[in-house]
Amino acid sequence: MPEHTAASRLRLSGLCFLLQILTILLFAVFVRYSPESSIGLCSQKLNCSWRSQDLGFQHPRFRDVHLQSLLGFGLLVAFLGRYGPGSVAISILIVAFAIQWAILIQGFLYFFLNGKIYVGAQSMVSADFCAAAILIATGAVVGRVNPVQMLLLTLLGVTLFTLNEYILLSLMGVRDSGGSLTVHTFGAYFGLMVSRILHKPHTEKRKEQQDTGHQPDFFAVVGTIFLWIFWPSFTSATTAHDPAEPWAVLNTYFSLAASTLATFVLWPVLHVEGTLRMVQLQDATLASVAMMGMTGEMLVTPFGALIAGFLAGLIPPLGFRFFTPVLRSRLKIQDTCGVQNVHGLPGILGSLLGTLLAALATADAYGGRLELVFPLVAQGSRTAPDQALCQLSALPVTLLLAALGGCLTG
Amino acid sequence: MPEHTAASRLRLSGLCFLLQILTILLFAVFVRYSPESSIGLCSQKLNCSWRSQDLGFQHPRFRDVHLQSLLGFGLLVAFLGRYGPGSVAISILIVAFAIQWAILIQGFLYFFLNGKIYVGAQSMVSADFCAAAILIATGAVVGRVNPVQMLLLTLLGVTLFTLNEYILLSLMGVRDSGGSLTVHTFGAYFGLMVSRILHKPHTEKRKEQQDTGHQPDFFAVVGTIFLWIFWPSFTSATTAHDPAEPWAVLNTYFSLAASTLATFVLWPVLHVEGTLRMVQLQDATLASVAMMGMTGEMLVTPFGALIAGFLAGLIPPLGFRFFTPVLRSRLKIQDTCGVQNVHGLPGILGSLLGTLLAALATADAYGGRLELVFPLVAQGSRTAPDQALCQLSALPVTLLLAALGGCLTG
Amino acid sequence: MPEHTAASRLRLSGLCFLLQILTILLFAVFVRYSPESSIGLCSQKLNCSWRSQDLGFQHPRFRDVHLQSLLGFGLLVAFLGRYGPGSVAISILIVAFAIQWAILIQGFLYFFLNGKIYVGAQSMVSADFCAAAILIATGAVVGRVNPVQMLLLTLLGVTLFTLNEYILLSLMGVRDSGGSLTVHTFGAYFGLMVSRILHKPHTEKRKEQQDTGHQPDFFAVVGTIFLWIFWPSFTSATTAHDPAEPWAVLNTYFSLAASTLATFVLWPVLHVEGTLRMVQLQDATLASVAMMGMTGEMLVTPFGALIAGFLAGLIPPLGFRFFTPVLRSRLKIQDTCGVQNVHGLPGILGSLLGTLLAALATADAYGGRLELVFPLVAQGSRTAPDQALCQLSALPVTLLLAALGGCLTG
Repeated sequence: MPEHTAASRLRLSGLCFLLQILTILLFAVFVRYSPESSIGLCSQKLNCSWRSQDLGFQHPRFRDVHLQSLLGFGLLVAFLGRYGPGSVAISILIVAFAIQWAILIQGFLYFFLNGKIYVGAQSMVSADFCAAAILIATGAVVGRVNPVQMLLLTLLGVTLFTLNEYILLSLMGVRDSGGSLTVHTFGAYFGLMVSRILHKPHTEKRKEQQDTGHQPDFFAVVGTIFLWIFWPSFTSATTAHDPAEPWAVLNTYFSLAASTLATFVLWPVLHVEGTLRMVQLQDATLASVAMMGMTGEMLVTPFGALIAGFLAGLIPPLGFRFFTPVLRSRLKIQDTCGVQNVHGLPGILGSLLGTLLAALATADAYGGRLELVFPLVAQGSRTAPDQALCQLSALPVTLLLAALGGCLTG
Repeated sequence: MPEHTAASRLRLSGLCFLLQILTILLFAVFVRYSPESSIGLCSQKLNCSWRSQDLGFQHPRFRDVHLQSLLGFGLLVAFLGRYGPGSVAISILIVAFAIQWAILIQGFLYFFLNGKIYVGAQSMVSADFCAAAILIATGAVVGRVNPVQMLLLTLLGVTLFTLNEYILLSLMGVRDSGGSLTVHTFGAYFGLMVSRILHKPHTEKRKEQQDTGHQPDFFAVVGTIFLWIFWPSFTSATTAHDPAEPWAVLNTYFSLAASTLATFVLWPVLHVEGTLRMVQLQDATLASVAMMGMTGEMLVTPFGALIAGFLAGLIPPLGFRFFTPVLRSRLKIQDTCGVQNVHGLPGILGSLLGTLLAALATADAYGGRLELVFPLVAQGSRTAPDQALCQLSALPVTLLLAALGGCLTG
Repeated sequence: MPEHTAASRLRLSGLCFLLQILTILLFAVFVRYSPESSIGLCSQKLNCSWRSQDLGFQHPRFRDVHLQSLLGFGLLVAFLGRYGPGSVAISILIVAFAIQWAILIQGFLYFFLNGKIYVGAQSMVSADFCAAAILIATGAVVGRVNPVQMLLLTLLGVTLFTLNEYILLSLMGVRDSGGSLTVHTFGAYFGLMVSRILHKPHTEKRKEQQDTGHQPDFFAVVGTIFLWIFWPSFTSATTAHDPAEPWAVLNTYFSLAASTLATFVLWPVLHVEGTLRMVQLQDATLASVAMMGMTGEMLVTPFGALIAGFLAGLIPPLGFRFFTPVLRSRLKIQDTCGVQNVHGLPGILGSLLGTLLAALATADAYGGRLELVFPLVAQGSRTAPDQALCQLSALPVTLLLAALGGCLTG
C-alpha cells in the first residue's frame, strides 16, 4: 500500500476507534443475551417467526454460514489481489464491523423488546448474511476506494440491507431462504451503483493486468472447495423447518455439479484463447449458489436442480464475454470482480424461477411440504399466484433500494 | 496446457455437454426425492439396510465425507502439479460428473422402486465414496491422459465401482465401512491397470522433475491437516449404528498418530539423501486411513490401532524405495502419484487384518457390539470363520474386477 | 535443513521408534475403550465430573478442537517459517506424540480404574488441549532447538501440563473452560523459560529477516479465518452444560470482532513505518481467544465481551512495541513467535478478569446459570469471593509450575 500515507492510516485508525466505541456504547445500552436460551424468547414474544430455527440444529449451521461469509466471499474479493494480502485484512475488518453493526440494526427491527435487544445464535446468522451482502458489494468497488470509504459503505450498506430484508421477509412474506434477492442481488447492485457514482475514467487502464498472478489461483481452489462443502448448509440455514432442509441441501449439490459441467461446456467455446482456470469454476459455483438461494427449498425434482444449475453455470461465461464490456464502455460502471455476472444476474434469474415455482405450487406437488415452504399459501390466506406476485414484486423493490442506496452512498 | 489445442478443448466441451444432457434426461425419467424424509422409505421398503444411517446424524457426516473426497484426494492429485492449478479444475470436473453418474448407477442397484430412484442424503454419501475411488484411480494416470479420456474413465469406473460394491456389501455380506477394499484397493488397482495399458515408454523421463515446486508442499500441508481432522468421520460414515462409531473414530485417530511417528522412524533410514517433507507425512496419513477403512470398527483395543497405524506408516517409505522401481522397470506400470504404495498395499493389508479380526470375533471380546459390527454372526446365520472367509474372498473379487475393468477401460 | 546431518536424522528416527514402542506397550498394558459408551462409565464411577459432555454433542466439538490445535497453532508456528514446510512436519510429529502421551498421563490421573485407563471421546479432547499448550511452548523456541529436543520437551511438557491442569481443575475447583490459564498462560511461560535456559547470544542476529516471505502471509490468512470459524467452539468445548454454551460462543465472537478493530486502531499509531499485515490480525485474534478462555462462559453481557476483546486486541501491538525488546535485551529471553504477547499476557489478563467476574457473581446476575458456571458457589459450599480467590491463586500456581518446568526441561 504505497499510496497509504501516514495521515490516511491514522484516519482509518481513528475511524475504527470511534466506530468501536460507538458500538460498545450502543451494545451497553441496548443489547442483552436472551435470558433462557436464544430460542425461548423468540418463539414466544417476538416477531421472529420468519427465522425460527431449533437451537440444537442451529449451532453447527451457524458455523458453516460464518465460514461461508468469510471464506467464500473473502476469497472472492481476495483473488483480485490488488493489495495482495492487505485486501484480505480489509475484508476481515469489514466483516468484523458489519457483524457488530448488523446485530444492532437488525436488533432494532426484529428483536426489540422493552427497550432491549435480545441476541442469540440466530442474530449471528442474520448478521453473517448481512456481512456476506456487504462483501459482495465491496467486490464491485475493491481497488478504487480506500478503507475509510469501505467502512462508511459498510455503515450505510448494513442499514439498507436490513431495511430491504425487513420489507421483503416480514412485510411482504417473500420466501428467500438462501438470499437470492436479499444477499446476492442486493449486494451486487448496491455495489455496482456505488461503483457507477465513483467512476473515474483514468483508472480503467490499470485493472487488466491484475488477475494474472499465481496466488489468486490458489485462493480460487480453496474458495471453490469450501463453497462446495459448506454452501449447501448456507442455503438451508434459514429454511423454516427441518423436513424441508434435505431437499434444499440436495438441490444445491446437484446444481453445483451441473454448473461445473456447464462452465466446461461454454468457456472453451467463447474464450478460445484463454485456458480454463479455477477462477471460472469458482464463478460458476457462486452463480449456481446465488440461483439456488431462493429456489433451493422450492424445487421438488432433482433434474430441476440440474437444469437450474446448468443455466446458472452458463451465465458467468456469457456475462464476462458480452455484458461486462458493455457495462464498462456504455454505462461507465466498473465491475472489478464481476459481481454483476456472478451474483447479480443469477440472483435475478433465481428470483424469476422462484416466482414461476411459487405460481405452480399446488398441494399435489408439495404434499405436506407446502405448509413448510409456503405457509401463507397452505393456510389459505394467500393463493399460489398471489405468492408468486409477491416473489416477483420483491425483485423491483430490491433493485430500487439497492440502486437508491448505492447512489446515496456513492 | 500448451498441448491442448482448440480442437481438443472443443471436444471436451462437447463431451461435457452430451454427458450433462444425458444425465439430466435420465434424472428426469428416473430420479425423485424420497417422499417423506430420506430415511423413512429406505428403512421400510428398500434393500438398503447395509447403509442405514439416522438422518439427524447423517447431515454433518455427509459434509465431512464430501470434504474428504474433494480435499483429501483432490489435493493428493494436485501435489504432482503437472498442470499447476489446471489439474485441480479437472479433478473437480471429474467429481462433479462422478457424483451425478454414481447417483444413477447406484440408484438402479439399491434404491430402485416402481421404476423410480428415490434419492436422499445417503445416496450422496455413497456417491462421494465412489468419487473418492475414481480420484484415486486418476492419481495413477494423471499427466498422461487428457480430460476427455479422464471423463470416459470416470464413466466406466463408476459403473464398475458400484458393481464391485454391490457384490461385496450386499451379496457377500462383507463389512467394509471405510472402504479399505471398495474405495482404496479398487481405486488403486483400477488406476494401475489403466496405467499399464496406456504405457508409453518415451514419457517416463519427464516425471522426475515434477515434485520439486513450492506450491505442492503447501497443498500437502493443507491436505494432511484436513485428513487428520475429517478422516475419522469419513471412516465412520457408514458404520452401522451409533454406539459402534466412537471406536471407529478413536481407532482411526490412534492409527494416524502412530503412522506419523512411523514415517519419522523409517524415512531417514531408507532415504539418506532426501529431507522428510510434508508429502511423505501425507502418504503415511493416507496409508493408515486406507488400512483403518475395514478394521476401524472391528478393533477393540487402542494399542491394536497403534500397531496397525505404525505398520501402515511403514508401507509408503518401503514401497517407494523398493517397490515403485520394480513396478516401473519390470511391469511397465507408471504410478504417477504412488497410489500403489499409498492406497493399494495398505488397503490389502487392512483387508487381511480385517479377515483376522473377523475370524477372532467372539461374543466375549465384542459384547453387545458383536451385533452391530457383524450382524450375521450375532444372528447365528454365519459363524465367525465363515465371516472371515467372506472378508478374505472379497479381496480377490475386488482385485479381479479392478484389473478386468482397468484393461477394458484402457 | 542443511545442518541436520545424517547422524542427527538417525537419532530422531531412533527416538521416535523408542517412544512409539514405549507408548504401544503402555497402551497394551493399561488403555482400554470404556465398555459401553464413553460417557456411561465416566458419569457413574470415575472422578471426571469436571468435564462431562454429552456424547451426542461431543463428537462435532471434538473435531473442531482438533482442528484448532492443529491449524491455529500449527500455522502460528508455521508463519515464522524458518525451515519452510519442514517445521510444519515437526509440528505434526509433536502433535502426534503429544496426543498419545497425554492420553496416558491424563488417564493415570483422571480415568484410572482397576488398573486400566478407559478412554473415550473426552480423553481425546483433553489430549488435544494438551497438544495445543505444547505447540504454544514450541512457538517460543522454534528455530533454536532440534527435533530431538522438541520431542523431549513434549515428553516433559505434557506431564507438567497434566499435573497443572489436575491441580487447578480438580483440586482447586477453578473454572477455566477455554484454557486461559491451563493452555495459554502455561504454554507461553513454559516455552519462555525453556527459551531463557537455552539462550545463546550469537544466534540473535539471524531472526530479524525471517518473517518477510510471501508464504507466511498466506498461512496467516488461512489461520485467522480458521480461528474465527472454529475457536468459539474450542472455547466452549468443555463448558459444563449445554445451556451455558451459546453465551460462550457469542462472547467469543464479539470479542474476536472487537479485537480486529482494536488492531486497526493501535497498529498504525505505534508502527508508523510498517504496513498492517495478516500476521497482526492473527495475533489479535489469538489474544482475544486467550482472553476469552476463562471468561467466555462468565460474561453475561455482550458489551462486556466487546470491551474485553478490544483490550485483548490492544495487547499484541503494545507488547511487540515495548515488551519484546525489553525481554530480549534485559532478560535474555528470545521469544521467536511472540508467544508472550499473543498468549501469555492475554491469558494472565483473562484470568484476572475471570477473578473479577467470579467475585461479582451473584444469583441475580446469573440466574439459573450460576449453577452451571460456578457449581460450588451455587451449592453454597463456597462463596463468590472464595471462588474468586481460587481463580486468582490459580495464576501463581500456573506460573510457578510453568517456570519450574521450563527450567527443568531446559
